[in-house]
Amino acid sequence: MPSKSLQPARWRNGVLEVIDQTLLPTKLTYLPLRTVEQVCAAIKTMKVRGAPLIGVVGAFGLVLALKKIRTRDPSEFRGQFRKYADTIIRTRPTGVNLRWAVERVFESASRAQSVGSFAGVAEKEAQAIYKDELESAKKMGQHGADLLEDDDTVLTHCNAGALATVGYGTALAVVRAAVQQGKRINVVATETRPLLQGARLTAFELSHDKIPVKIIADSAAAQIISRGVIDKIIVGADRILRTGHVTNKIGTLPIALAAEFYGVPFYAVAPMSTVDLTTDPSMVVIEERNPDEVLYFHGKRVGPKNVGAMNPAFDITPPQLVSGIVTDRGVARPPFEDSLRSMMGATSKVPG
Amino acid sequence: MPSKSLQPARWRNGVLEVIDQTLLPTKLTYLPLRTVEQVCAAIKTMKVRGAPLIGVVGAFGLVLALKKIRTRDPSEFRGQFRKYADTIIRTRPTGVNLRWAVERVFESASRAQSVGSFAGVAEKEAQAIYKDELESAKKMGQHGADLLEDDDTVLTHCNAGALATVGYGTALAVVRAAVQQGKRINVVATETRPLLQGARLTAFELSHDKIPVKIIADSAAAQIISRGVIDKIIVGADRILRTGHVTNKIGTLPIALAAEFYGVPFYAVAPMSTVDLTTDPSMVVIEERNPDEVLYFHGKRVGPKNVGAMNPAFDITPPQLVSGIVTDRGVARPPFEDSLRSMMGATSKVPG
Repeated sequence: MPSKSLQPARWRNGVLEVIDQTLLPTKLTYLPLRTVEQVCAAIKTMKVRGAPLIGVVGAFGLVLALKKIRTRDPSEFRGQFRKYADTIIRTRPTGVNLRWAVERVFESASRAQSVGSFAGVAEKEAQAIYKDELESAKKMGQHGADLLEDDDTVLTHCNAGALATVGYGTALAVVRAAVQQGKRINVVATETRPLLQGARLTAFELSHDKIPVKIIADSAAAQIISRGVIDKIIVGADRILRTGHVTNKIGTLPIALAAEFYGVPFYAVAPMSTVDLTTDPSMVVIEERNPDEVLYFHGKRVGPKNVGAMNPAFDITPPQLVSGIVTDRGVARPPFEDSLRSMMGATSKVPG
Repeated sequence: MPSKSLQPARWRNGVLEVIDQTLLPTKLTYLPLRTVEQVCAAIKTMKVRGAPLIGVVGAFGLVLALKKIRTRDPSEFRGQFRKYADTIIRTRPTGVNLRWAVERVFESASRAQSVGSFAGVAEKEAQAIYKDELESAKKMGQHGADLLEDDDTVLTHCNAGALATVGYGTALAVVRAAVQQGKRINVVATETRPLLQGARLTAFELSHDKIPVKIIADSAAAQIISRGVIDKIIVGADRILRTGHVTNKIGTLPIALAAEFYGVPFYAVAPMSTVDLTTDPSMVVIEERNPDEVLYFHGKRVGPKNVGAMNPAFDITPPQLVSGIVTDRGVARPPFEDSLRSMMGATSKVPG
């Protein structure tokens, strides 16, 4: 794996260490998270981000929460454990991997035979999730690599790479796997306002792996696509509905609209843990983040003092704009409901 | 006019004074331009920007150029004068108002009876352009105001306001005129990366005029439109072709695509001096600006050091996405070619 040195999260002697992604690309620093509160704060402030990665981080957060529970009464213990699980899930309401991973740890630990064995079971489950996610990233890469041809230029949005996962990536796993097949792939990365994950993270990790990349303003994507120089659009996803609606970082939808208008295929790449077969598109809660993310840049205000901002963190791309959804179990094609349900049927690992 | 104190350019005793728009919204400072070189530099660095405004500034730039010409030989004089005109036009190749205004001064002065009277004729013509543009802004406002209803929320991109003109605006002239009719209008302003004219200038001038405004990241426009909270999209234009293709600030096209997809009317507003009846869409030169505008923010690099950027300054919105084009002579509707030609026929002021 070309990016083997980029390990965005690691569990060492009961401490979760995460790369502080707000300091990239300037500084590559691990931040030790020793408590569930530190984990929640790191997720909320996007020191760790990326749907699959925050799932894993949330899972270990619940392991850390166990240290806080002092009671030995099984029912009270479970009640407190549940509260911590909910607190972690609420840190990012839009994505589903976080909920999925936290519930997976919660349910495993809840089946522990005694209060004393909760911690061990929970830790083992979190480690299993970590391992599964890494394997899943490799599989997404394998399934998606055939979509790319030699000399393709891929436009991607936000960061759906090694830094959004426990390594290798989702959208960028597809790019990495194609490169490993010997294909020459160029990437155009949108900067991704307001927090610039594209300019800071995608450009950083691709350049780290020696994959050619150029940055553009988000608003330039349609013009660049209209020139005919983009062969494929490949993005990640924070939640994929049974209908094929793709919830992803704000700014994905306008790229999908441009891709459709100019006839460029648009793919979303995500592990099956991102697929939510139960929620209707109209019921997805779009996280509204602090307006200051838009209004300030490196501590300097960009607009006038008396003017506010709106800051939705995600948008929803409807299925008619989506050419395919690459998962760790294959590539789903329209109509997505059939395609996703049959993939989901393959194991019972993912809730449906 | 509510924004009477915002006068982005003024001609005083042979000196062109312009608001340095790169310092807004923090500082409102006039920059004196005494030479044609200073005028060209101010346009290139976007200290003055906005298609109608740079037309006027370019016109006065050509007046200032006359001071440089030392020869009294009429043919040589004309040759040097032509060279200065071309130098000014080349500072921003995409818009047409600059070329139109500079040619208008050039042709008037060229008809002067002697080399000695060039300067006076040129100055008078530049002042006429200034006056015409201000009147034209008022007329655009009048023609467009009826498109807006009480309580409408308008989404606009970049700055097509008083600061993009000699006052009142183009897109924002429509908003101002509707407000003057007693309608309550809310505005959503995209920040407009990379140079943030929306956050810095549109938010500043609307808040100056007490018109409610909120800032969003450019990439959030589609999501905000998808919520059903935007009634109209109103933008300016740097060049409008006979076909109805609208060349405007990068990021206009994705907004038009979202407007079309979600059924929201999309209007471009520009004076007839912006209409170019001769050039084909494929022949429009899209200015590619310095990548550092994308890569640096307040002097800090946002991406990794070894990664470059692409920075197209404009995109072209095709006519099938445009509901109407508001000019100083009325509102053109599809098919635009007929509509624009008949408007153009009304006077001989504009080249066709």
